[in-house]
Amino acid sequence: MENCGITNPGGFYASGLHCGIKKKESNDLALVFSEIPCVAAGTFTTNRFKSFSLLWSLRNIDNPVRAVLANSGNANTCNGQKSRKNTECIMEELAKILGTERSELLFASTGTIGREFPCGPVLKALPLLAASKSRDNHTEAAKAIMTTDLAVKECVAETGIRGRKKEVVMGGMAKGSGMINPSMATMLAFITTDAVVERGALKKALKEAVDDSFNMITVDNDTSTNDMVVCLANGFAGNSSIHEESSEYPAFSAGLKKICRELAVKIASDGEGASKLIEVRVKGGWCARDARRVAKKIAGSNLFKSAVYGCLPNWGRILSSAGSAHARINTRKAEVYICGIKVYDGNPVEYDEKALIKKMGGSKVEICFDMKAGNFDATGWGCDLTEEYVRINKE
Amino acid sequence: MENCGITNPGGFYASGLHCGIKKKESNDLALVFSEIPCVAAGTFTTNRFKSFSLLWSLRNIDNPVRAVLANSGNANTCNGQKSRKNTECIMEELAKILGTERSELLFASTGTIGREFPCGPVLKALPLLAASKSRDNHTEAAKAIMTTDLAVKECVAETGIRGRKKEVVMGGMAKGSGMINPSMATMLAFITTDAVVERGALKKALKEAVDDSFNMITVDNDTSTNDMVVCLANGFAGNSSIHEESSEYPAFSAGLKKICRELAVKIASDGEGASKLIEVRVKGGWCARDARRVAKKIAGSNLFKSAVYGCLPNWGRILSSAGSAHARINTRKAEVYICGIKVYDGNPVEYDEKALIKKMGGSKVEICFDMKAGNFDATGWGCDLTEEYVRINKE
Repeated sequence: MENCGITNPGGFYASGLHCGIKKKESNDLALVFSEIPCVAAGTFTTNRFKSFSLLWSLRNIDNPVRAVLANSGNANTCNGQKSRKNTECIMEELAKILGTERSELLFASTGTIGREFPCGPVLKALPLLAASKSRDNHTEAAKAIMTTDLAVKECVAETGIRGRKKEVVMGGMAKGSGMINPSMATMLAFITTDAVVERGALKKALKEAVDDSFNMITVDNDTSTNDMVVCLANGFAGNSSIHEESSEYPAFSAGLKKICRELAVKIASDGEGASKLIEVRVKGGWCARDARRVAKKIAGSNLFKSAVYGCLPNWGRILSSAGSAHARINTRKAEVYICGIKVYDGNPVEYDEKALIKKMGGSKVEICFDMKAGNFDATGWGCDLTEEYVRINKE
Repeated sequence: MENCGITNPGGFYASGLHCGIKKKESNDLALVFSEIPCVAAGTFTTNRFKSFSLLWSLRNIDNPVRAVLANSGNANTCNGQKSRKNTECIMEELAKILGTERSELLFASTGTIGREFPCGPVLKALPLLAASKSRDNHTEAAKAIMTTDLAVKECVAETGIRGRKKEVVMGGMAKGSGMINPSMATMLAFITTDAVVERGALKKALKEAVDDSFNMITVDNDTSTNDMVVCLANGFAGNSSIHEESSEYPAFSAGLKKICRELAVKIASDGEGASKLIEVRVKGGWCARDARRVAKKIAGSNLFKSAVYGCLPNWGRILSSAGSAHARINTRKAEVYICGIKVYDGNPVEYDEKALIKKMGGSKVEICFDMKAGNFDATGWGCDLTEEYVRINKE
């Protein structure tokens, strides 16, 4: 499909191919390239162990950025000093091929920890990767960052902001699955926009969008060594520069939120072994932090996730999870709804169990929990816990 | 078996029977009784939602205690005001039958949340429960608190402390399984001792013992509404009273730690669906809190637990979990051992993979993680994550 992903904004090109990091014949190396230098912003894992690729990006995120290299099949983490050297060698070579500075490149990896990062196959593939970059190849790039993902994750957004050359738009791609969690676990997301935007405004808008999206999904409770969300803005649209006080800032921020939420929900739906998406809407939090904590705690509870898999309307597990989130809850008035049906309001509520079980059989289960403690809301997403999750991860 | 459980110390009696809270014909009501009033100490769940039974015990824990009633099959939580009244009615009746004050009774429940607590069958069973209490019936009591537990959990300890009448000893029983977690999840443990001990010393010794045992086990990441650990000391041994500065305090504290660790390990081994016990020894923590956090994080990681189930020596998942625990780690020097074999020392270490996989096939997998950041150690326990866990909890 044309321009429905990371190359939706003007001036961006992408490519993806199989270079041999993965044994099986699927894409494992991706490039995202901008004609002109971008303002960049990113959020990175809080794990103490960090990938050499991620460390490289951390150093360059405040520079003008021209391109992002990404690979799957090897996390480039805790894999010895030789791999650090290989990382530098690859970046050096990519800069030569693209005619950029090394400092204008970002790098992201996902895959197994502890295996030496292969230099040969990557170096060999770089010329073709660079040569094949195009407006159309965004899905090849999106495929190259998949690990146990079953679906390609791409999306686009419009902003309604007019520029000299064109309307400002956005595009994105992500990989998820595996240990998706609060604080960005084994998750890569790349977002592009052709907006002219100041670094401060981009950073602020990205942080807000990530807090409401990627940081509100959970597949299990681990946090990876490689997670990053990066947003590149190349200014191709020629709009008047967006800063935090601009009248266009809200529209820009809303576009970024839309992209991030859409990618985050795609990631949660495609959690390892998942059969259902769980959406947890929390209302009535005493503060935003309380509401977020409870939403994530419910969405991340193994017991509740197993119950959703079995279509069990076990609201006791919802109360128990919510209660263990160290948040203020009005326990005498708190309410629980499953798929729109009230099941608890401080006391057990009679409801049609058969009808509810039937509703829970769909591909999305919505929980609403009202803390009755204040006015703050939050939404969290997760997926059910299935035998398939265990099967994937024991192998 | 005689006196190998909760009635091991002098002056304690126990009984257990089926009263009808559970549908199937297994014990669901237990009594622990002391001839003479006990000094009591307890630790209780931090969940915001609390069982009516637990709230009852919270009110009485600082009183002289004569007996504990415990049931399985109904958590007596979030189940309406009628259940609160039923709770009071049951306690009232038990006090009459035992000839004690209501304020001298504790109550603990485990089971499903949200179902009305049945008054009739319990009231009807209390006379027989009281009449059948004996020194020999400890296992009947231990059986009556089981839910998805596969094994009865009882143990005893000697202290070497001499009293006027006899040596001070201890006994205990517990139920675990399901959502065992840091901060005491769906876990009940009752410990008895015939020591003469001051309340302050008992509280201190119990807190220390619980921190090193029950609070270091994790089966999943939920925390229940009903968890409690209670220790009763009836003074039957006639030793000179133990206070925090006594020469006997260390021996008393060591006995309590032994009991708590033994029960905690039994609980972790018997986690829902578990096929293996995981023991995580963390060394070199910058502080005790860091070491504990890392031990629990590794023992609780779904990804690592799945790997252990599949006998995969995936040390990357150990590093990733440890790194996400928000603890200080010397990432350049940290070491990982699996079943005694070094697999990482700041760089990947070559090892005999076949031999290690074979070792991981046993019923216990030992992990050692050296943070290389200081001198504090901690040990955590968990179990592997199996398809069986999901199967149990979806039903």
